[in-house]
Amino acid sequence: MLNPQLNKDGKLKHLLTIEGLPHAILQQILDTAESFVGVAEREVKKVPLLRGKTVCNIFFENSTRTRTTFEIAAKRLSADVINLDVRSSSRSKGETILDTVDNLTAMHADMFVVRHAESGAAHFIARHVEPHIHVINAGDGRHAHPTQGLLDVFTIRRYKPDMHNLRVALVGDVLHSRVARSEIHALTTLGVPEVRVIAPKTLLPEHVEKLGVQVYHDMREGLKDVDVIMMLRLQSERMSGAMLPSAQEYFKCYGLTQEKLALAKPDAIVMHPGPMNRGVEIDSSVADGSQSVILPQVTYGIAVRMAVMAILAGNS
Amino acid sequence: MLNPQLNKDGKLKHLLTIEGLPHAILQQILDTAESFVGVAEREVKKVPLLRGKTVCNIFFENSTRTRTTFEIAAKRLSADVINLDVRSSSRSKGETILDTVDNLTAMHADMFVVRHAESGAAHFIARHVEPHIHVINAGDGRHAHPTQGLLDVFTIRRYKPDMHNLRVALVGDVLHSRVARSEIHALTTLGVPEVRVIAPKTLLPEHVEKLGVQVYHDMREGLKDVDVIMMLRLQSERMSGAMLPSAQEYFKCYGLTQEKLALAKPDAIVMHPGPMNRGVEIDSSVADGSQSVILPQVTYGIAVRMAVMAILAGNS
Amino acid sequence: MLNPQLNKDGKLKHLLTIEGLPHAILQQILDTAESFVGVAEREVKKVPLLRGKTVCNIFFENSTRTRTTFEIAAKRLSADVINLDVRSSSRSKGETILDTVDNLTAMHADMFVVRHAESGAAHFIARHVEPHIHVINAGDGRHAHPTQGLLDVFTIRRYKPDMHNLRVALVGDVLHSRVARSEIHALTTLGVPEVRVIAPKTLLPEHVEKLGVQVYHDMREGLKDVDVIMMLRLQSERMSGAMLPSAQEYFKCYGLTQEKLALAKPDAIVMHPGPMNRGVEIDSSVADGSQSVILPQVTYGIAVRMAVMAILAGNS
Repeated sequence: MLNPQLNKDGKLKHLLTIEGLPHAILQQILDTAESFVGVAEREVKKVPLLRGKTVCNIFFENSTRTRTTFEIAAKRLSADVINLDVRSSSRSKGETILDTVDNLTAMHADMFVVRHAESGAAHFIARHVEPHIHVINAGDGRHAHPTQGLLDVFTIRRYKPDMHNLRVALVGDVLHSRVARSEIHALTTLGVPEVRVIAPKTLLPEHVEKLGVQVYHDMREGLKDVDVIMMLRLQSERMSGAMLPSAQEYFKCYGLTQEKLALAKPDAIVMHPGPMNRGVEIDSSVADGSQSVILPQVTYGIAVRMAVMAILAGNS
Repeated sequence: MLNPQLNKDGKLKHLLTIEGLPHAILQQILDTAESFVGVAEREVKKVPLLRGKTVCNIFFENSTRTRTTFEIAAKRLSADVINLDVRSSSRSKGETILDTVDNLTAMHADMFVVRHAESGAAHFIARHVEPHIHVINAGDGRHAHPTQGLLDVFTIRRYKPDMHNLRVALVGDVLHSRVARSEIHALTTLGVPEVRVIAPKTLLPEHVEKLGVQVYHDMREGLKDVDVIMMLRLQSERMSGAMLPSAQEYFKCYGLTQEKLALAKPDAIVMHPGPMNRGVEIDSSVADGSQSVILPQVTYGIAVRMAVMAILAGNS
Repeated sequence: MLNPQLNKDGKLKHLLTIEGLPHAILQQILDTAESFVGVAEREVKKVPLLRGKTVCNIFFENSTRTRTTFEIAAKRLSADVINLDVRSSSRSKGETILDTVDNLTAMHADMFVVRHAESGAAHFIARHVEPHIHVINAGDGRHAHPTQGLLDVFTIRRYKPDMHNLRVALVGDVLHSRVARSEIHALTTLGVPEVRVIAPKTLLPEHVEKLGVQVYHDMREGLKDVDVIMMLRLQSERMSGAMLPSAQEYFKCYGLTQEKLALAKPDAIVMHPGPMNRGVEIDSSVADGSQSVILPQVTYGIAVRMAVMAILAGNS
């Protein structure tokens, strides 16, 4: 089967999930993002790479935060950006997703940034669109959110360039995370020798060890001597559910505090995809502390999204 | 009485309805749109005709689809676009429509694209605004939606340039259609010798034959040897009302299927303004079939809207 | 204590409230706005002063009208504008205001235009942001709305340049007004010798006379021989509350009619911040009459906001 993300020359055509990405393309995205980090620090934060292109943010579910990152990235590339909140409008008129997509294609849109509550929505759209259209998955259910995964990897590489010598721990709700699985894949692909997951059994997928990770249920054990701590977001609906006793109890066991952080290497970095539940997954003193790279993650998120868009546009 | 759409030199000042448009202006819009079809196929889809102009999409009723077409058209002309969703905000503060319009005028807006649920809203605004402001009606109740009508006519002319030799059929809810009446007018003005309407009596206006059309209640008879089939959208609220037995029954009688399409000329084109109710007005195999020009209609819709905006701005 | 609006060189860093502004900066804003009045009358209404800058309209409470003025101003300065409606989205995910602000800062935003229902929100954000970020208060509860106050003062100066010789009356709900207090301050600072407030006791703050104003409860007395009448907006929630008998009764006592206007100087100007409650604070014949400068206020509002943004960007 052909990789739906690549064109016939093996170049990136859509960004749907990290898992199908060849090593060379993963590297290309990270290297290109490197060149865009500087653009955001210029006096005039703009390059003309997407001038005269139309980027449509098609959001079937609301996410101001994610929409903002793509809108800023596209505008810094000089694209025209159209925001479509299709939760109610066209859907209520009985129009199908494909009719929406076909219409925007007919308007000569160039790129679709798709957010949908259901897994596989971006794949479905990518399979259907005309050859000149590029689709970027901006989060589909609990399946994938590849630019988030890429910015995480980019952040790790920036702070810990020698990836062949790292111990990385993912902490928390691996089961429902959109990024955990693909990050494990990306880190392994890039040569990270040891990836750990730390979580209660109820928040781990079955047979998680088959992904090549070491499983810990005790956070103090799991954090020992790691270089990178990636906290995962706990959806509020989990907190009151049957899976967890309470937010307080969760924080006690799996929340990152200064005291637990001290078990990692002294120069370990702390990451979180945001938005944070302070006092649930992470203590504020750690989130805002000297080892936190949570805000640099956001900064690099713009560079990574610009890189993906620029690469896709270059492969038209 | 002066035509409210024209300035004292007889040039286009507002676009409110097709019905008041002189033949020469109709022709000017279609010819100008022709030149914009190519812009959308360029590497850089932008021309600087409206640079430094402010286009306000004033939507008193939500329509993401229509708003998107005008936003794309205006941005391709390099305008600054301001989207105003005035359903709740200013209205809830007791501000009148005219206060909203006066305020935007005072901010030196150049063009208002107006969508309103009530018939005559765009006319009302056009009558009131300062001389340098241009108003485009983007749909007012069931009264008019002139850019939709114009893109339909443009599409027919592109596929069937010899308009003096055409048979055109409009099928469906003529009574509640925003465009049927004005399209009949435009087609007649442009020399189309035979326009048919095909619908149950409950979906036809009284004395519809006075518009110069031939009336059919049987779709099979009405489609015989036509060159163009324009399907009209059936509002969902009609389907369950007293006017129609059911959506299934409607489809049986007035839905376009391959079998009924075969009664038209072999090279007949099929049109629909969208969004489609697949399986109600039209079968999916026809909507997506080789005779369908439904997506080209959307493409030409951008060119026609660019043409209207460029002409209006040129007449300032 | 350092003035939170100024940088260490005494230059404008944030615009939070008029009350803390030194006379020289007040003057600088008004003079700079003067130069932007002409931009809006040009063929191409754009200057490149903020090209490549990212301006974020962060609206924690909806105000299409205010958002539009800042969006137009920023786009005329060639900025990239990102509109964030943060009423629901990020808040519902438990993110704090500061997390939102930190994230946008990490994305290299340059300017935050903040609207919030609670007093002090913009100050709170300004205190917290990185040194290169500029915050503009676009209305915080009933505390401040400095660009509104500035455009009012600018309008007065344009129509009545000899400010040392003016009698100005503020009429209506001084108690809940976001601008009354700061306008009294600005007018006094700029040398206006006589400022009057006209209102029922229930709509005046305690000890209002300490602000250096003359207090009138009878509108006919208070309007006598004034040069400027500034009507204040009456929030609809006040009308039905315990503070006022009824909207009709209010209009009778404190609504501006032609007959009451005749008591002011013959060349007095009439102002209102909008949106107007016609027939409550002001009669339509006065609002639309020859002495009204209500729409010029809106026009100057764009110039004043462009001036503030340009000055802030210049002080980076």
